[in-house]
Amino acid sequence: MSFTAPQSMAEQIAAYLAQQIIDGSLVSKQRIQELKVVAELDVSRGSVREALLLLEQRHLIEILPRRGAMVAELSAESATSLFEVFNTLLIRLVILVAERWQDDELEPLILQIGEIQKIAQQADRSHFMKQVFHLLDMAYPLARNKILEEILVDLQPAIHRCYALAQRFQPNDGEAAINFFAGLLQAVTTRNTVKVPAVVDSYISHELDLVLAALKQEQ
Amino acid sequence: MSFTAPQSMAEQIAAYLAQQIIDGSLVSKQRIQELKVVAELDVSRGSVREALLLLEQRHLIEILPRRGAMVAELSAESATSLFEVFNTLLIRLVILVAERWQDDELEPLILQIGEIQKIAQQADRSHFMKQVFHLLDMAYPLARNKILEEILVDLQPAIHRCYALAQRFQPNDGEAAINFFAGLLQAVTTRNTVKVPAVVDSYISHELDLVLAALKQEQ
Repeated sequence: MSFTAPQSMAEQIAAYLAQQIIDGSLVSKQRIQELKVVAELDVSRGSVREALLLLEQRHLIEILPRRGAMVAELSAESATSLFEVFNTLLIRLVILVAERWQDDELEPLILQIGEIQKIAQQADRSHFMKQVFHLLDMAYPLARNKILEEILVDLQPAIHRCYALAQRFQPNDGEAAINFFAGLLQAVTTRNTVKVPAVVDSYISHELDLVLAALKQEQ
Repeated sequence: MSFTAPQSMAEQIAAYLAQQIIDGSLVSKQRIQELKVVAELDVSRGSVREALLLLEQRHLIEILPRRGAMVAELSAESATSLFEVFNTLLIRLVILVAERWQDDELEPLILQIGEIQKIAQQADRSHFMKQVFHLLDMAYPLARNKILEEILVDLQPAIHRCYALAQRFQPNDGEAAINFFAGLLQAVTTRNTVKVPAVVDSYISHELDLVLAALKQEQ
């Protein structure tokens, strides 16, 4: 993704469909018909096909040979898989940041964490999510690993989808986030990489529990 | 990727270009012009654009807004990033397999490892690589994590590219592989997950050293 050049048509179509999958207007296993999207948005078929590839890369849809695209299933199993991978890569990201930050690079991240802790207790969870993803974006350059960044950026929309579901079913849960970010900050500023896995594991498994509870309620 | 349905045109074009990047006929930062590929292969522009998205997802090219596609740079920095991520995800894969294998599921993998150890000392490294990737394909169902599988499958071509480079510059190096697979087998059959990180770290960092040495020689 680029924030300097205008988004391509395919990126715009992908963003439009991603939003519908994240907010639940397109549901698990629902078919996405190329020609319907072409007609609805008045765009070329080629751009829609490219958008679908981008959404597949972001784990939001599946493209089946000769059967077309459908929304990826959000189930207990798929959410668990997603959080297992996210957990693994987040630990690596935090460890790399803890090892590699230089000079005053951490300062804007510390401010952002303060901001996140302030809004963690507020009702507006989508604002909270947005700020957490912004923190991730700020962390990538400090980790100095482009491939890790690309893979995590591609995972974000599916993680977002899970959180949006949890949010529709669960009460606010700011306490866990506040403690998590405090632990994170402590480990990163002191370069205490050994502490990172436990800090991340505990928060992510807590968040997965919320998603699994929401999936049960939804049934 | 599907092995049951015939490959789409985009997949076939992607495979063709991937091969050229892996064997070094297309080099780091070389531009890939859509229209040239269209003319060369006599295919539609739409299929080429889809193929380029697949190659970007597989970390073999970069698509820059308004400047088109170019072969991803293979440098000391990018190879290190790639191996860091591969290492992290491979450890997770092996741990999941060690935790989750059931009944006689391991048996075909044990046979495949025997096969790999037999050919590890042979000169034909591309046959060796193929069998290692085949072992990975056999391991995914045992790990029971679709997202991890998708991400690792997408990393394989870039890893393959690094190995192909190392192979063009380095003598055979079967000893390390034989020891690695012996350690792996031991950890997985006894479900000794604690041992996995050290076993994987040691082999992958050895392999990265070969890639870095090849990159130096290439200059």
